[in-house]
Amino acid sequence: MSAPAKLKARQPRGFVDRGPADVAATERMLAVIRESFAIYGFEPVETPFVEYTDALGKFLPDQDRPNEGVFSFQDDDEQWLSLRYDLTAPLARYVAENFDALPKPYRSYRAGYVFRNEKPGPGRFRQFMQFDADIVGSGTVAADAEICMLAADTMEKLGIRRGDYVVKVNNRKVLDGVMEAIGLGGEENAARRLTVLRAIDKADKFPAEEIRKLLGEGRRDESGDYTKGAQLCPQDAEIILRVIESAGDIERFVRFFGRKYTKPFTIRKYEEKLRRVLGVSVLPTPILEGLQEVEQIRKAVREAGYEPDRIRIDPSVVRGLEYYTGPVYEVELTFPVTNDDGQVVRFGSVAGGGRYDGLVGRFRPEPVPATGFSIGVSRLYSALKAVKSPIVDTRAELPLVVVTAMDNKSPEFMPSYQAMVSQLRQAKDEAGKALCRADLYLGASGFNAQMKYADRRGAVCAVIQGSSEREAGTVVIKDLVLGAELAAASREIKDSAEHKERQAQAQFAVPVDGLVEGVRKVIARHG
Amino acid sequence: MSAPAKLKARQPRGFVDRGPADVAATERMLAVIRESFAIYGFEPVETPFVEYTDALGKFLPDQDRPNEGVFSFQDDDEQWLSLRYDLTAPLARYVAENFDALPKPYRSYRAGYVFRNEKPGPGRFRQFMQFDADIVGSGTVAADAEICMLAADTMEKLGIRRGDYVVKVNNRKVLDGVMEAIGLGGEENAARRLTVLRAIDKADKFPAEEIRKLLGEGRRDESGDYTKGAQLCPQDAEIILRVIESAGDIERFVRFFGRKYTKPFTIRKYEEKLRRVLGVSVLPTPILEGLQEVEQIRKAVREAGYEPDRIRIDPSVVRGLEYYTGPVYEVELTFPVTNDDGQVVRFGSVAGGGRYDGLVGRFRPEPVPATGFSIGVSRLYSALKAVKSPIVDTRAELPLVVVTAMDNKSPEFMPSYQAMVSQLRQAKDEAGKALCRADLYLGASGFNAQMKYADRRGAVCAVIQGSSEREAGTVVIKDLVLGAELAAASREIKDSAEHKERQAQAQFAVPVDGLVEGVRKVIARHG
Repeated sequence: MSAPAKLKARQPRGFVDRGPADVAATERMLAVIRESFAIYGFEPVETPFVEYTDALGKFLPDQDRPNEGVFSFQDDDEQWLSLRYDLTAPLARYVAENFDALPKPYRSYRAGYVFRNEKPGPGRFRQFMQFDADIVGSGTVAADAEICMLAADTMEKLGIRRGDYVVKVNNRKVLDGVMEAIGLGGEENAARRLTVLRAIDKADKFPAEEIRKLLGEGRRDESGDYTKGAQLCPQDAEIILRVIESAGDIERFVRFFGRKYTKPFTIRKYEEKLRRVLGVSVLPTPILEGLQEVEQIRKAVREAGYEPDRIRIDPSVVRGLEYYTGPVYEVELTFPVTNDDGQVVRFGSVAGGGRYDGLVGRFRPEPVPATGFSIGVSRLYSALKAVKSPIVDTRAELPLVVVTAMDNKSPEFMPSYQAMVSQLRQAKDEAGKALCRADLYLGASGFNAQMKYADRRGAVCAVIQGSSEREAGTVVIKDLVLGAELAAASREIKDSAEHKERQAQAQFAVPVDGLVEGVRKVIARHG
Repeated sequence: MSAPAKLKARQPRGFVDRGPADVAATERMLAVIRESFAIYGFEPVETPFVEYTDALGKFLPDQDRPNEGVFSFQDDDEQWLSLRYDLTAPLARYVAENFDALPKPYRSYRAGYVFRNEKPGPGRFRQFMQFDADIVGSGTVAADAEICMLAADTMEKLGIRRGDYVVKVNNRKVLDGVMEAIGLGGEENAARRLTVLRAIDKADKFPAEEIRKLLGEGRRDESGDYTKGAQLCPQDAEIILRVIESAGDIERFVRFFGRKYTKPFTIRKYEEKLRRVLGVSVLPTPILEGLQEVEQIRKAVREAGYEPDRIRIDPSVVRGLEYYTGPVYEVELTFPVTNDDGQVVRFGSVAGGGRYDGLVGRFRPEPVPATGFSIGVSRLYSALKAVKSPIVDTRAELPLVVVTAMDNKSPEFMPSYQAMVSQLRQAKDEAGKALCRADLYLGASGFNAQMKYADRRGAVCAVIQGSSEREAGTVVIKDLVLGAELAAASREIKDSAEHKERQAQAQFAVPVDGLVEGVRKVIARHG
C-alpha cells in the first residue's frame, strides 16, 4: 500500500518563519521604537508592498541578479510592478504624490518588510523588516542632527546602555570630492563611483586586500563568482583606502588594517589627512562643504550633550546606496559578541541613513531635500537579546493556564470544561487587566499526553477534573512550576516534612467556584 | 526653458497608502485582537509573504485572472513563487513542516497583508490585511465552538456592542450533501461544485435572478464580462436556491428574496425543509452528519451563554472557498449603515472561517483536522469607526507641541531651539509616561508659515522665542486650542473682560527653565 504522492512542505530559499517568542518580543520592540519616534514629532504612514518598478528606481547594491536584486512581475496592463526593496523609495513616491496635502517639513516614520531578490545563503534573507524615520522638506543639517539624536535616544529606550552604542556621522560630499579629484567625476563615471562605494561598504566584511581588488580589476569569491571592480589604477585605489582609514578608534578598522587608531578625532585632522592623501594644499570646494556640514552637526549634537560619547564623527562611514547626497550616519553597537568564526568582535551596525536630496525630486518640478535613517529590525532584535534587554524578555507574557479534558471521549463533559476556561479568560488582576491566558485541551489524547501538552506550552498550572472531582464538586489545580522544582529535588530533601508540605501546595483541590482564586494563588506564587 | 521629463508619482492600481490616523488606530485595534486571541491560549506565528506556488494550492474564488488571482514570479532556479493570498494556506505549510515540534492541538494566530491579483476597481484592493486564529490537530466540534466564542468575545472587546454583531454557523456538509443529491458528486464535478459555492457566496451582493444565472448557463455583468455558470438545470438551481433561503431572520435574505423570515430557527425545521426541498423522507448521511455537528455546536455555545443572541445557526452561510469540509461560520455586524446607493443596510460580514480538514493533509501522511477564522482588518476598522469605538479614536494620541524657529535664517540659534524640544521630549506626566510629542520646525519659512504648520499638524501649543524673548530669558507659549476658540468668538464676547483674561491664558511668557511647566499647564487645560 503506497500513499498518494504528497507535496513537500518547505519555505522558499531565503525566507523564514518566526515563532511565538520572536513575534511577541518584536512587537514590544516595535512599540518602543514607535513611541520614541512619535515623541520626536514623527507621524506614521504606510505605503503598499508593491510599487511601479520605475518609481522605485535602481539603487540597490547587489547588481549580479536578475532585475538588479528586485522581485518584479508584469501587471495585466503590461506595466512592471516590483516588491519594495526599502522604505525610502516608496516614501519619495508618497511625498511627491501628496506633496500639497502634507505639512512641510514632513516628519514620517514607517515600519515593514522589504524584499531583496538576493542569492540565498546562510544569514542572507530575501525578506526582512526595516523601521525608518525621515524628515522631508528640510535642507538644514539641524534635521540630520535631529535624526542622529533620535537614533541615540531610541537605542537607550530599547535597553542599550550608553557606551554600548555610537552614532557615527560622515558626509558623502567628502568621498564624492575625492572621487572627482581622482578623475571619477561626471555622469559617465556614475557606475564606477557606485562600484567604489559598494567596495568601501564591504570594508567591515573583507580585509583591505580584497577591497583593493574590488576597487581595481575585480574579485573572485570562494564560490567562484566574479565581481567586476571599479577599474581604478593602484595609486587611486590607495587614495580611496587611505581616505576611509582615516577613522579614529573604530573596531572594523582594527580588523581591516590590523592596527588600532586611538587618537581622538577632530575635523582639522580629517582635513589635514585629506590634503595629504590627495597631495593638495587647498581641498576642492565640495570636500570643504562636506567638512563644514560635518562640523555643524558635531556642534549641534555637542550642545545637546550627545557628542562625543553618543554621536561621533567617523570618516569611514559612506553607506552603500547611491542616492545619498550629504551627511550619512550609522548606528554601531560596540559591545563584544563572538562571531561564527569564534572571534570576539563588536556587534556592529544596526541602523544607518543619510541625506538624499535628489530622491523626491525625481517626481517633482522643485528640489525637495530629505534626510532619514533605517533600523534593521532583525539585527536590532538579536542585539537586544545579546544585552538581555527587558523588552525582549519572554517572561513579559501573561501566564498560561491549561484546562485539561479528562473525559474527552464523551462529548457531554466538554461544556463544563469550556465553562472553566471561559471563567479564567474573564478573570482580572488587581489592576483590572487580564489575569492569565487560558487554554482548553481539545485533542483526543489521554491524561499523560495532556500534561505533556501543558508543559510544552509553558503553562504555569493545569486544571484537572476527573469523575471523582466531578462528584465532589471540585477541581484540582496543579502548579507545574513548583511541581518541576520538587521533582528535581534530591532523595534526602524528598523525605523532609517541608517537601511534603510543598507537595501539598503544588497540587490542591478547590471547589468549582473557587477555581479563579486557586489559579490566582499559583500565579501570585511565581510573580 | 523646459524642465527634464519627470517620473509620475502614482500607486499601482488596487494598492493604497494609509495616513497617520489610520495607521495608529489600526495598531491599537490589532493590539486588542492580539490580546483577545492570546487570552484564549493562541500563540503568534509569522510566515513569510512569499511561498512556493504549489504549496499555496489553488483555492481562490476569482478564476478569471492570470494565475487564478495570485501574484506569481519565477525564481532563478525556475521554481514558481507566489505572494500569499490568505493566511491559511501558509499556516498549513508551516504546521506540516514543523509538525513534530509543535504542541498539538496547535492554537495559532497570525496577522498580515495578503495579496490578490484581482481586476482593480472601486473598493477592490489587491493588498489587504487579515487577522486569523486557527486550531490545528483537533477534530472535535468543541474547537469550532471555541473559535465562534472567540470571535464573539473579540467583537465586544473592540467596542462592538452585544446585539450589534452575530456569529452565524452552518455546515458545509449540508450543501455538499445537497449537491451530491442533485448529481454534482464525485471528483469530475469538483469545478462545478466550486462554481455553485461561489455563486451562493455572491447572494449578499446580487438578487436571486442573477444567482440563478450563475447556477445555470452563466452571467454577463454591466461591464460586458461573461462568467460561465455551473450549468445546473433550472430545477436543480431552484433546489440550491431554496436550501440557502432556509435562513431565519437574516437581512441579506430580506434583500435577496424581498421578504422577511421571522420564525425562530431550529435544527428540526432545517431538517424538514431539506427533506421537502430534496423530496426525500430520509436525508442522505452526510447531510444528517452535518446537521448533527451544527446541533452540537449550538448546544456548546448555548451552555456557555452565547446562543442565540451572539452565536446563531444560519443555513445561508456557505463561504466561497473550496477547502472547507465541515462547520463554517461568519461574523456579521447587524447595525445599519447607508451604502453607496443611499440604501440603509446592515454593515455586513467582517470575518469568517470554518473547518478545513484536508489542507494540512496535502503535505502529511496522516490526516490533520483543523478549523479557524479570519478577520478582514480594513472592513472591521470601518465598522469600528462607524460605531465610534474608543479604540479607533484619534484623540488617544499624545498631545503635540511645536517649537518654532523664529531666527531660522541664522543657524546659531538652532541649538537653543533644539535644547527646548529636547527638554519637552524628556518630560514625563504624573504616571511617569511621556508628557507630549515635541516637534522642532526645521523648514526655511517665516513665522506665519510656522504657525500654519503647527495648526496643520494638530499641535496643542506652540513655543516661540524671538530676539526680545531671548534677551529677557523667556519663551512664549501659545495655546492653539484656546486660541482657535477665542478667534471664533463673536465681537460682543471679544469686548468682555473675561475674554481678555482668556486671551492672556492663551498666550503667555515663562522663563526658559519654566518651559515644561508651562506646556504641562496647557496640556492639563485640554485634558
